[in-house]
Amino acid sequence: MQKKPLILVTNDDGITAPGIRTLIKVMNILGDVVVVAPDSPQSGMGHAITVDATLHCKREHIDNGPQAEYSTSGTPADCIKLAVHEILDRKPDLCVSGINHGSNASINVIYSGTMSAAIEAGIEGIPAIGFSLLDYNWEADFKPVETFVKRITENVLLNGLPNGIVLNVNFPKLERENINGVKVCRQAKANWVENFDKRQNPQGRDYFWLTGKFVNLDNGEDTDNWALENGFVSVVPVQFDLTAHHFMQQLNSWSLNG
Amino acid sequence: MQKKPLILVTNDDGITAPGIRTLIKVMNILGDVVVVAPDSPQSGMGHAITVDATLHCKREHIDNGPQAEYSTSGTPADCIKLAVHEILDRKPDLCVSGINHGSNASINVIYSGTMSAAIEAGIEGIPAIGFSLLDYNWEADFKPVETFVKRITENVLLNGLPNGIVLNVNFPKLERENINGVKVCRQAKANWVENFDKRQNPQGRDYFWLTGKFVNLDNGEDTDNWALENGFVSVVPVQFDLTAHHFMQQLNSWSLNG
Repeated sequence: MQKKPLILVTNDDGITAPGIRTLIKVMNILGDVVVVAPDSPQSGMGHAITVDATLHCKREHIDNGPQAEYSTSGTPADCIKLAVHEILDRKPDLCVSGINHGSNASINVIYSGTMSAAIEAGIEGIPAIGFSLLDYNWEADFKPVETFVKRITENVLLNGLPNGIVLNVNFPKLERENINGVKVCRQAKANWVENFDKRQNPQGRDYFWLTGKFVNLDNGEDTDNWALENGFVSVVPVQFDLTAHHFMQQLNSWSLNG
Repeated sequence: MQKKPLILVTNDDGITAPGIRTLIKVMNILGDVVVVAPDSPQSGMGHAITVDATLHCKREHIDNGPQAEYSTSGTPADCIKLAVHEILDRKPDLCVSGINHGSNASINVIYSGTMSAAIEAGIEGIPAIGFSLLDYNWEADFKPVETFVKRITENVLLNGLPNGIVLNVNFPKLERENINGVKVCRQAKANWVENFDKRQNPQGRDYFWLTGKFVNLDNGEDTDNWALENGFVSVVPVQFDLTAHHFMQQLNSWSLNG
């Protein structure tokens, strides 16, 4: 009998979030599961790591599942580092992150703790997938996406992923029968237009809340945003070599030497 | 007479760090300078943004220079958002971030607050450059790199940058006469091998410090790491469309639909 794959599970909404509980349930069908996740929500943490504070790590027993679980005081990227270099005694065969409560499509990949965990795993040479559902609600319904999570994960376990690439999977907020299927996409060129909500504290000092509106000016039908708006699951292959190779030749023509 | 360019300056080491004070000095030669920078060090913050806490912003008078200065309680990415959407009354012509105390070459770009500020500016459609010196010391000597900072910035002001691309500039820790010039490079495929320093607090509870060793297995002579090790200033064009376009065709051959 073939050995079951070792699957590392993390997220950025915290270890008790319904999204990660769904992900753990599906992964228990596919392999031996170890969960290392933040002890509290870490949304918007991007690829932050903890360099100037101490990290705590605690064994958890949250349900009666077969998985081993640990909560940490760190960011999602810290969780991967702790798991790989301190908790696990062998390199995992796969890392999955999520299921995030809210979109990580388009430019959100840059701000996403969910995706930073997947990217950190990718840097460690571990095939990795970030999953997100377009529903920010804590009570979001993850049931409709379970079969897609399983199918996509089976594909990665079977085929592997090239070095330097992880997958960014986003699900539309739809009933199962209204999901049109899965589309491989590119990241839409969209951005947030910020609007700071300026207030005064009781002592008269100004402070701000960051709010914003997502603006997509990219009309391509090959983008993740298009897929999600049209009822598809989006799968974007994401790389962490950020070099803009296509601009190097032109840059070489500049007078950079004094 | 042509209007002077409006230059936004930020960093991740905090508004009083010697690196940003050098950057402000050079930028004052080239344009009208507004500084919006964190009130305390934010290293390792990656592309974190503050979504679940309030932000403070304070006018500062740190030296007698002509620049306007603001410190904020936010991350480097927050500083850009605050500057563009709250503080400035027109879009800056350029954003510069740094000079970071320590390397942001190779995979460090992913963890870098300095570069996340430059990328955030790029997302806002502002030409942007992140500068870093390979010296983590607070007392690092930035004098030898001033002429390079000026020359590279002049080039960006003159030529602009394509949408979606910012520059990642790293300086070797060398005397001016030992710097061999500027090289346009790709990001080296290197990573950190973590080593957690496990300790016990006085109450007997375990905690960890993140430590690690930078490991470069990429022998290419076209990389930023190679350039820096050979006495050159490295300039890497960095993109924030993370789509791995070259893997999309293969991914389309997978059986992703259930």
